[in-house]
Amino acid sequence: MLELAIAGGGPAGLTAGLYAARGGIKEVVLFEFGMTGGQITQSSEIENYPGQLEVIGGLELMQNWFPQAQKFGLKLESEEIVRVSKNADGSFRLTTRSAKTIDAKAVVFATGSVPKKADFEGENEYFGRGVSVCATCDGFFYKNKEVVVIGGGDAALEEALYLAQICKKVYLIHRRDSFRAAPPTIERLKTAPNLEPILNAKVVRAIGDAKEGINGVIVSIAGKGETTLNATGVFVFVGREVKNEALKDEKGGFICAVNEKGEIAVDLKMQTSVKGLFAAGDVRADSPKQVVCAASDGAIAALSAIAYLDKKG
Amino acid sequence: MLELAIAGGGPAGLTAGLYAARGGIKEVVLFEFGMTGGQITQSSEIENYPGQLEVIGGLELMQNWFPQAQKFGLKLESEEIVRVSKNADGSFRLTTRSAKTIDAKAVVFATGSVPKKADFEGENEYFGRGVSVCATCDGFFYKNKEVVVIGGGDAALEEALYLAQICKKVYLIHRRDSFRAAPPTIERLKTAPNLEPILNAKVVRAIGDAKEGINGVIVSIAGKGETTLNATGVFVFVGREVKNEALKDEKGGFICAVNEKGEIAVDLKMQTSVKGLFAAGDVRADSPKQVVCAASDGAIAALSAIAYLDKKG
Repeated sequence: MLELAIAGGGPAGLTAGLYAARGGIKEVVLFEFGMTGGQITQSSEIENYPGQLEVIGGLELMQNWFPQAQKFGLKLESEEIVRVSKNADGSFRLTTRSAKTIDAKAVVFATGSVPKKADFEGENEYFGRGVSVCATCDGFFYKNKEVVVIGGGDAALEEALYLAQICKKVYLIHRRDSFRAAPPTIERLKTAPNLEPILNAKVVRAIGDAKEGINGVIVSIAGKGETTLNATGVFVFVGREVKNEALKDEKGGFICAVNEKGEIAVDLKMQTSVKGLFAAGDVRADSPKQVVCAASDGAIAALSAIAYLDKKG
Repeated sequence: MLELAIAGGGPAGLTAGLYAARGGIKEVVLFEFGMTGGQITQSSEIENYPGQLEVIGGLELMQNWFPQAQKFGLKLESEEIVRVSKNADGSFRLTTRSAKTIDAKAVVFATGSVPKKADFEGENEYFGRGVSVCATCDGFFYKNKEVVVIGGGDAALEEALYLAQICKKVYLIHRRDSFRAAPPTIERLKTAPNLEPILNAKVVRAIGDAKEGINGVIVSIAGKGETTLNATGVFVFVGREVKNEALKDEKGGFICAVNEKGEIAVDLKMQTSVKGLFAAGDVRADSPKQVVCAASDGAIAALSAIAYLDKKG
């Protein structure tokens, strides 16, 4: 029986491991299939991790995180957790992709969420070199430049408004004839003179070169054909796949409370609706999806788990 | 009129400044009298800031934080904010120690809290070299060693229990004849065989040498005289002074909701009970008092402020 199992090896899971191991939890194992570091390792430029003055790549930013936690005794198993269920005695049973089961007194669930693809030519090719899935992270790299935002929901509109404060021009491309966002958010689009919505349209192709990145975006507008926008960045916000599958029971219901997007509900202590189960990082509701915030979540979840285990005795 | 004023220049305020400036807020000023970096600059050894593999001093850890934010346009004024009040139009008026007033559309309040002193000989002399005010931060440096905890409230007991999982022996010194903590927490003291409460007692003196730090702690027990404990660490938890004074109105009431300790109530978006006023770091309720958590708070508060300003137009 483990004291603590951590599902997910991004900034949240790694920091939970650091704080749990350093906090004296003896049997703590982090489960991540393959390399640790999380989604951020795919980013080529990060300049907003506090204390990191120079621009740094995601892989480089994350390279010390596991070794730092390992120093204090965190163990790593290269396994993906596919099921978390509660045992009769209040502990948890975790099942791995390879059908192994592990029992743990407490669990930190930090599996993240994955941005969905908009499906245009060049989306993968230029990822991190023109294609972004995070305005807060990458918007500044497009200061006074023209960018395209793809999407029509709340996230897309909010990110477009955020970008409008930084960029010279923001084209908001949506495939339907109206946005599916909160009416006040849709109203706010009008207050940004440099934000131009283009409805009934889709991005067909990003053009550019391997070295300099994107220098144009081809958009197809219903009934009007194709046009080339003079943009160097494409921000994709067409939804996220929340990695919450492992929290479903046999009947397909969640073992803890989630919001309408399937993100796990937590309080300020990262406590879910199930005692002993904590969530951290992008998989939880209201996550700002920033490395420093995921790390903080992990630290808080571990400290809460330590207090929980201590109380349980 | 500023768009955003930030009160306090520790990890929370600095990260709020980084995210606000980088997020396109043009008029953002951080107010801190004297050096930025916060309390953590007084720590000599930090090994739990995620990504920082080697042990680092607090001053060194914080040295890049302001320059990083300044790169994106954050301004700094060496002034202490002594009053924050709401204007009729929904904006805020900030008053500095030097009686200057500044108006701002939104405020991030990140002034922190300061641990109170237990008042024993050597408390200042050995601060950071044996005397600590944070078990989560420094407990690991005393792995398998003997330590003294001073205090009798919930924080002291919880920190003592945390230390009991790491240290060989924990002496819990309290000046009264009973603890003033939650009964279940007091009960839990019995479950830690290496935790020894000493009531009606106070630490008189820490002894040691300037180079090696503390090698003994002299305790005075009522009716029993003085005894020397073989401890190398003294953890002081006799309360914190929450730096919330500036949020009081003329009548001495708070302009926003606070908890029983005077810490500011926030939700997961660092929104206080007053629209446009955000809190971050050790001054807010349920703060884990860790650099990475304060930084995350600052990032979240700034992103919330950006959305608030955007909505307000």
